[in-house]
Amino acid sequence: MTLLVSGWVAIDEIETPFGKAEGQLGGSATCAALAGALFTDVRLLAAIGSDFPADERDKLMDRNIDLEGLNTVPGLTSRWGGRYHYDMNTRDTLYTNLGVNADWTPELPAGWEGSSTAFLAAADPLLQRNLLSMLDNPLATMVDTIKFFIESVPDEFLETIGQSTFVSVNDSEARELTSMPSVARAARALLDHGPEGIVVKLGEYGASFVSREQYFVAPGYPLEEVVDPTGAGDAFAGAFLGYLDAVEGTENGHIRRAMIYASTVASFQVEDFGPARLLHLTRQEVDNRYREFRALTHFEVD
Amino acid sequence: MTLLVSGWVAIDEIETPFGKAEGQLGGSATCAALAGALFTDVRLLAAIGSDFPADERDKLMDRNIDLEGLNTVPGLTSRWGGRYHYDMNTRDTLYTNLGVNADWTPELPAGWEGSSTAFLAAADPLLQRNLLSMLDNPLATMVDTIKFFIESVPDEFLETIGQSTFVSVNDSEARELTSMPSVARAARALLDHGPEGIVVKLGEYGASFVSREQYFVAPGYPLEEVVDPTGAGDAFAGAFLGYLDAVEGTENGHIRRAMIYASTVASFQVEDFGPARLLHLTRQEVDNRYREFRALTHFEVD
Repeated sequence: MTLLVSGWVAIDEIETPFGKAEGQLGGSATCAALAGALFTDVRLLAAIGSDFPADERDKLMDRNIDLEGLNTVPGLTSRWGGRYHYDMNTRDTLYTNLGVNADWTPELPAGWEGSSTAFLAAADPLLQRNLLSMLDNPLATMVDTIKFFIESVPDEFLETIGQSTFVSVNDSEARELTSMPSVARAARALLDHGPEGIVVKLGEYGASFVSREQYFVAPGYPLEEVVDPTGAGDAFAGAFLGYLDAVEGTENGHIRRAMIYASTVASFQVEDFGPARLLHLTRQEVDNRYREFRALTHFEVD
Repeated sequence: MTLLVSGWVAIDEIETPFGKAEGQLGGSATCAALAGALFTDVRLLAAIGSDFPADERDKLMDRNIDLEGLNTVPGLTSRWGGRYHYDMNTRDTLYTNLGVNADWTPELPAGWEGSSTAFLAAADPLLQRNLLSMLDNPLATMVDTIKFFIESVPDEFLETIGQSTFVSVNDSEARELTSMPSVARAARALLDHGPEGIVVKLGEYGASFVSREQYFVAPGYPLEEVVDPTGAGDAFAGAFLGYLDAVEGTENGHIRRAMIYASTVASFQVEDFGPARLLHLTRQEVDNRYREFRALTHFEVD
């Protein structure tokens, strides 16, 4: 069983009220791949420029991620700069330099069409659809997106989610895509486009999973200090699919555990800049915090 | 066992993107008392003007609320007008007419000092402290507040919470009171002022309970339609204390169940304007939705 992760590998510059990181390894695919690798074998499909530092590549190798699909193409690695406000729930994008991602079209290395699960981080929905169509009967797939695609090509994105098992959106994106003010109703409207389940990310409040069969709420872990929220949603998605890949199932119980594992890994992700915390996170640490979630939400019915 | 509720009984004017209510029965104490009355005997301590409609008074009587402490004083009933934005998480106060609450000082009817629990809705913290000091060894008390007192007399409020068992604040209030960006750390900072537990209300995302012994997260019920969020926090508090009053306990398990009952009743509160839904809500409906919360959050550890 193998999880395919496609998206951006980037170099970030991040400012929060409590610190700053420059030349920080980042990107949606980086965070999702590192999260998934805590649970299963991961293949990374992304483009980097010739300027991408060799030691950053080594960090991914060290976490056992298959880099055959990490293409070095002529040009510069994508770069993103962002600044967070005091409450860490809102941020300004300072700049986005597309670099090599401006006109790169991903192609699957031989054999990768047999990946059992796949996370397609934010990208042109047409490109996401092409990738989905290349996969050979996967157990589960998930697509994510960003405001840019929701505002520029909403119908393309809605068509794409119909070809994915799961969709990952945050609550404001769900509202915007469906013009429904309630998360519950927005998620049901998204289900009407064809996917089996919607993950609605709620920032520090956790995430909800909505399918035709169940509604599940995973709280956010009550961290005393958040260093940098960047990539939390991608880490969530990578862990969610990584866990499902490892247990080879998508039944209701699997999904509930995947949601809690995902919230657990996302809570580690935000403890340091970018995915720095995931680079030395152990499965034991993940399992310990997973168990803490039980105490956080358990109550008796009678 | 009896729950004492003090605060405002008011007439509201509420506008949401989906509708409007004028001359709506409202007020913090009204919502909390109606919520508490689903679980235990409730005593209402509040002031109304001579203009207060007799049929609104009858509605409270019909829910078995003891109105001996509902004082009719010369002048006008307090009135509040508010308008909600599209996402229902933010609102503008259009006007606040203090009316008889401008200079009324509550006094306990004979025997009420023996109330076993008490909810003191938002009021001058000095007045809240006076009321707390009149109570004779209650099982549990809770104080709430609003932005106005946090900004004008924060130290007074922090002294008041040291004399209450529990405090109810929303997450932005907790951050503002403590200058801590994380809810977890802000709650711990509030505990240092002396109360046994902090209820941090998270709007549609539910609420957290933080004590020295436990951290519990109650999700918000995933409603498809929210008609009016006004009074949800007060209904939450009234149900929380009403349940504890009924079971005569404040152990960890009691508190977890009280949090879920509180989130349940708050979810009904927002289904109609003001406390209109609570006026015909049955305990059976509450118990049914309480059980749904189990499905919403339950997962297996192994």
